[in-house]
Amino acid sequence: MHGTRLDPWFDAYAERAHNLRASEIRALFSVVSRPEVVSLAGGMPNLKDLPLERLAESAKSLILNHGAQALQYGSGQGWEPLREQICEIMTYDHIVGADPDLVVVTTGSQQALDLMAELFIDTGDVVLAESPSYVGALGCFRARQADVVHVDMDEDGLIPSALEETIGRLKKQGRRIKFLYTIPNFQNPAGVTLSEERRPVIAAICEREHVLILEDNPYGLLGFDRDPLPALYSYAPETVVYLGSVSKMFAPGMRIGWALAPHAIRDKLILASEAAILSPTMFGQMFLSQYLADYDWYGQAKSFRSMYRQRRDAMLSALEEFMPDCTWTKPEGGFYTWVTLPEGLDAKAMLPRAVRALVAYVSGTAFYYDGRGANHMRLSFCYPTPEDIREGVRRLSGVVNAEKELVEMFGTGSIPAGAGDPEHLPGPSTVPAPDTL
Amino acid sequence: MHGTRLDPWFDAYAERAHNLRASEIRALFSVVSRPEVVSLAGGMPNLKDLPLERLAESAKSLILNHGAQALQYGSGQGWEPLREQICEIMTYDHIVGADPDLVVVTTGSQQALDLMAELFIDTGDVVLAESPSYVGALGCFRARQADVVHVDMDEDGLIPSALEETIGRLKKQGRRIKFLYTIPNFQNPAGVTLSEERRPVIAAICEREHVLILEDNPYGLLGFDRDPLPALYSYAPETVVYLGSVSKMFAPGMRIGWALAPHAIRDKLILASEAAILSPTMFGQMFLSQYLADYDWYGQAKSFRSMYRQRRDAMLSALEEFMPDCTWTKPEGGFYTWVTLPEGLDAKAMLPRAVRALVAYVSGTAFYYDGRGANHMRLSFCYPTPEDIREGVRRLSGVVNAEKELVEMFGTGSIPAGAGDPEHLPGPSTVPAPDTL
Repeated sequence: MHGTRLDPWFDAYAERAHNLRASEIRALFSVVSRPEVVSLAGGMPNLKDLPLERLAESAKSLILNHGAQALQYGSGQGWEPLREQICEIMTYDHIVGADPDLVVVTTGSQQALDLMAELFIDTGDVVLAESPSYVGALGCFRARQADVVHVDMDEDGLIPSALEETIGRLKKQGRRIKFLYTIPNFQNPAGVTLSEERRPVIAAICEREHVLILEDNPYGLLGFDRDPLPALYSYAPETVVYLGSVSKMFAPGMRIGWALAPHAIRDKLILASEAAILSPTMFGQMFLSQYLADYDWYGQAKSFRSMYRQRRDAMLSALEEFMPDCTWTKPEGGFYTWVTLPEGLDAKAMLPRAVRALVAYVSGTAFYYDGRGANHMRLSFCYPTPEDIREGVRRLSGVVNAEKELVEMFGTGSIPAGAGDPEHLPGPSTVPAPDTL
Repeated sequence: MHGTRLDPWFDAYAERAHNLRASEIRALFSVVSRPEVVSLAGGMPNLKDLPLERLAESAKSLILNHGAQALQYGSGQGWEPLREQICEIMTYDHIVGADPDLVVVTTGSQQALDLMAELFIDTGDVVLAESPSYVGALGCFRARQADVVHVDMDEDGLIPSALEETIGRLKKQGRRIKFLYTIPNFQNPAGVTLSEERRPVIAAICEREHVLILEDNPYGLLGFDRDPLPALYSYAPETVVYLGSVSKMFAPGMRIGWALAPHAIRDKLILASEAAILSPTMFGQMFLSQYLADYDWYGQAKSFRSMYRQRRDAMLSALEEFMPDCTWTKPEGGFYTWVTLPEGLDAKAMLPRAVRALVAYVSGTAFYYDGRGANHMRLSFCYPTPEDIREGVRRLSGVVNAEKELVEMFGTGSIPAGAGDPEHLPGPSTVPAPDTL
């Protein structure tokens, strides 16, 4: 994307356009997509267990019986019957009695994220985010020229005292904090969960400091051992915009997510969404609505949980077996674990060599706004089989060990980043860039 | 949307968020949606003639045979087989041999419009647009705080000398012109078409002046009397970003549109789209791809043409019969005619009274950036039956005549705009705001 090709329109772009960054592993992308590579990079859900035969019949009857509506434009806010069902989904997050009129249906929750960035961020505004945080959110914030300030986490999630300290410091500096972006459940990329005790504390700090919370919850229903903890929204509904998605508990292919927002923000989200896409897909919304009405969708989410639990177990035991020099988080749900490499290793520089060894991951640097993260990598266990996960970690350990030997011999394992990258851009791929998810 | 409700986050919004405007007739919206109202306001296509039984079978077999792919994430750029088919569609616009790799699939062409605004417009930049122009585009430009400068049209579309003069004047003033936004075919709202003679001239002016063209072509295949004229893109592919959509030639419910762009702009469109939505709906893309492969889609578009031709005829003859004091354009395709009211009448002020008389339209003011247009209205003939169109125009003529009498007696027919509006916001509707389309 950075190539030397001359762009005659280079001077015409808006300032913000120069802040768009290609995915860190886009250059390796066509290689990563090859079947012989075990990708521990992507965040694609495993859809093999969906009841495709029944879903096929549903799609047929939807078009037969409601085709003229399902194939038409819909309202910018989203279809009301679906918004009512979305409120039922959120009761599992302890959001009780939410008003469907406060829900805005979006093209995946990513669109809701993007709209929030659009609505709130002027150049130089501060967004608070966990350290590390979701690369796709950082991209939205960067595109609006925000300054993301990371707030420390530990194994219980965001640290309340660190949040207080950061807000205090920034306010003293006269900085404008627009919101706290947080993924309380099975965080992407760290795999940690905000503890039940900390939730009301975080909510209260933000309420008191008048800092809006953008609560992103795509993985909430995928806890391996228990039902979801209460959403931050349940503690402070006037201070939280809650984002939900069916991409992980059902499927991403219809691109349906939503925002639940205080009334005035909801109004602006609708206007911004109409400007961006006119209306979300009616077919997708009605299809999802049928799924929620006719299927045991919570039972399906539970069966996904046990499938992903097996994969998490495969990941953690492979790490113990093959990578004793690393440390990693122990996720209780979701898709990811966060690995810390031995001293001196650089995950970004090492990636081309890993891909040559037929295994891929995302370098920790993707998840920071400030260049940190080189000694970390995100490993995902959602898509490959348990056997492939074990094999992938085995291959990765070979790369890490070789790298470690170099560091021990020469003090550095890093060939300058990019030196192993293919010189030319790969052709388009059929799957999303692994580190956009 | 403007209510007195206190918004505790009012001070937190980005500057651009204050530029979002509610649809002009949103306040009348729940009334307009009632079945007894003849709406000549909306731009919803009439889908009654789609082969729903066959489409239902297609949807079923898509999920049965390719469910795991159709329900998954896809690439940010869009599915390659569909991008190839999109290039076939564009051959009807005389775009021959387009590279599928230059196509980006979007959530309706509205998203492509929004991404172009995002990529190009800094505060205060100039966008050139026809006079009048599509309200949904003006909204995107306004949200990025552009200054839209309208360029005159006549019955042959955009006037080349007016374009040259405007570019020259603005450049002399040191203004930054980011692009010319134009709808060459069956323009929304004016219903006029850029003549074949003017097309290479407009393209050459923009090429010479290094002004990018954003060519929006949702209605191109809906010409009543002939196949499409050559797209501006066909004259100057390095100077044009071409936007296409299947919303009008097939159906909008899957939300599929696209951009065909010069290479470097395409790169940025992909990155911006990934930030906005990760990827367009795979189900929608694969469903559309099946439709294009298995159906006589061009025959379907032709049958839509003759259905809309009948409605255009009903509209024009009703106007002649009932509204002899007005003038109007004579569209050769598309959805709209543009009516000029008798001297002194104000379409915006008159709208609540029209709705009370059970007919709706969009006031001309919606289609200007600069407050003009009050003596115009856009009438759409796409959705109501020919009988309803005639009845709608009959009702409208009653309102116009009553208004004319007031003007003749008192010199003004205008009760201040808004005086007839309902005091409270209506509840959410199941259809899109008529003047967002």
